[in-house]
Amino acid sequence: MSPATDPEFAARVRSSFEAQAFMRLIGARLEKVEPGAVDIGLDFREDLTQQDGFLHAAVITGIADSACGYAAYTLMPAGSRVLSVEFKTNLLRPAKGERFRAEARVLRAGRTITVVQADVLAFDGSTDWKVVATMLGTMIRQ
Amino acid sequence: MSPATDPEFAARVRSSFEAQAFMRLIGARLEKVEPGAVDIGLDFREDLTQQDGFLHAAVITGIADSACGYAAYTLMPAGSRVLSVEFKTNLLRPAKGERFRAEARVLRAGRTITVVQADVLAFDGSTDWKVVATMLGTMIRQ
Amino acid sequence: MSPATDPEFAARVRSSFEAQAFMRLIGARLEKVEPGAVDIGLDFREDLTQQDGFLHAAVITGIADSACGYAAYTLMPAGSRVLSVEFKTNLLRPAKGERFRAEARVLRAGRTITVVQADVLAFDGSTDWKVVATMLGTMIRQ
Amino acid sequence: MSPATDPEFAARVRSSFEAQAFMRLIGARLEKVEPGAVDIGLDFREDLTQQDGFLHAAVITGIADSACGYAAYTLMPAGSRVLSVEFKTNLLRPAKGERFRAEARVLRAGRTITVVQADVLAFDGSTDWKVVATMLGTMIRQ
Repeated sequence: MSPATDPEFAARVRSSFEAQAFMRLIGARLEKVEPGAVDIGLDFREDLTQQDGFLHAAVITGIADSACGYAAYTLMPAGSRVLSVEFKTNLLRPAKGERFRAEARVLRAGRTITVVQADVLAFDGSTDWKVVATMLGTMIRQ
Repeated sequence: MSPATDPEFAARVRSSFEAQAFMRLIGARLEKVEPGAVDIGLDFREDLTQQDGFLHAAVITGIADSACGYAAYTLMPAGSRVLSVEFKTNLLRPAKGERFRAEARVLRAGRTITVVQADVLAFDGSTDWKVVATMLGTMIRQ
Repeated sequence: MSPATDPEFAARVRSSFEAQAFMRLIGARLEKVEPGAVDIGLDFREDLTQQDGFLHAAVITGIADSACGYAAYTLMPAGSRVLSVEFKTNLLRPAKGERFRAEARVLRAGRTITVVQADVLAFDGSTDWKVVATMLGTMIRQ
Repeated sequence: MSPATDPEFAARVRSSFEAQAFMRLIGARLEKVEPGAVDIGLDFREDLTQQDGFLHAAVITGIADSACGYAAYTLMPAGSRVLSVEFKTNLLRPAKGERFRAEARVLRAGRTITVVQADVLAFDGSTDWKVVATMLGTMIRQ
């Protein structure tokens, strides 16, 4: 991965993340901000579930999409804005667990378009972290 | 579209929707339940936004994914469960507006797999409803 | 759909299509070129099949992707280049038939990004045309 | 990755691949068949190009989709059939090169649905292999 060109990239990501009211609503937190790599963590809550009591796909997608957007953003020059053009999520297992983490990694950073991949992992307290979903997304610099 | 085979399809969808705690958290409501077609509505709230004050992609994706899942579910036999295998969302415009609605329509209902398309529309009070996002998703019967 | 801004849009599409050696290899032909709408036709051939004797997903995707790219291209200013950023294809039915047609329609044309949807239809000689695949794709102007 | 349950998995994949007329047309060859992992190679040919002289996205998608399908197939029981439900391709760089290879790896093999990721790499004779495209796809057992 090319290094971040803007030395303030981490501050820029943190400030934008704090402005996301929805991340606050669901209790998501930034856990890692490195050039081309961002992790977002989340604890299980009853009010984030779908009809079977698992984490709702919207919540999984939300932390994955935000992680992808910010992973792209770390590599963009100062003064840029980042927007999601599109993303695809495959749900691999029921999203059961006490804690969740979206791990996004930039696959290819172009001048305008950045392609990012993210896994969402779940930890249920008894075994290892398991991948419950994977995202492939396209971000644009504006 | 083939007619629903289960006469209780609408009751089944409503009961499952009410069990989705996350839909309650974001204030989403079922607005239409017909064979192969489900609409979910949502009003703008400050706590559902991303960093620019627009509706977060997770919320857009959430109502679109739930609408897709339930549109597929209307055509499934009694006793089925529906799960999202995957979905792809294209964000077409900034999700600005006072009211939003996800409209899902089944494209192809197979024995196991159902493919569904959804648009998310926004109404900003001054002009017509505008499509702000579109989803193409794959649902599975279990 | 906004009208094409370049009056030479159709000539531009035809000239680019003729430069696609792969379209010639598979026998694809441009059947319609209108602002925001392009159709590409193809006849069945044994050498385009997968292991069950149906049209290979690569061929379906090929005519759908080219139709999407050119549908986007019709709306771009003179001097532009169009590239596919990404596309997603759902295969809805076995691609059985004598004749096939990809029909692409622009959903949203932005300054840089254009989002396009395409259906691929098959005609087997006995019944109506059936949708065998659908694509949702993202094109970029350069 | 779970081991293949069918000891004849490789022979099964090879026999199905040889029945794909389209793979023969484009000169694709099976380069690796292991449980959950299949590679397909291809040499550049003028008749496989798009308008700029690069490999057509249909060809890239074709070798990636076939590699994904067969990677899933290696893990399925004897007597199964494999079909692509859907796939998404991101094109990361112009597909320039003398040789290409699609490398597919199973992310999650379920009883019915298998999710597979593939990269397509290009070698232009002067530098290292580069990833030119990535696919995330969903395969079904029948």
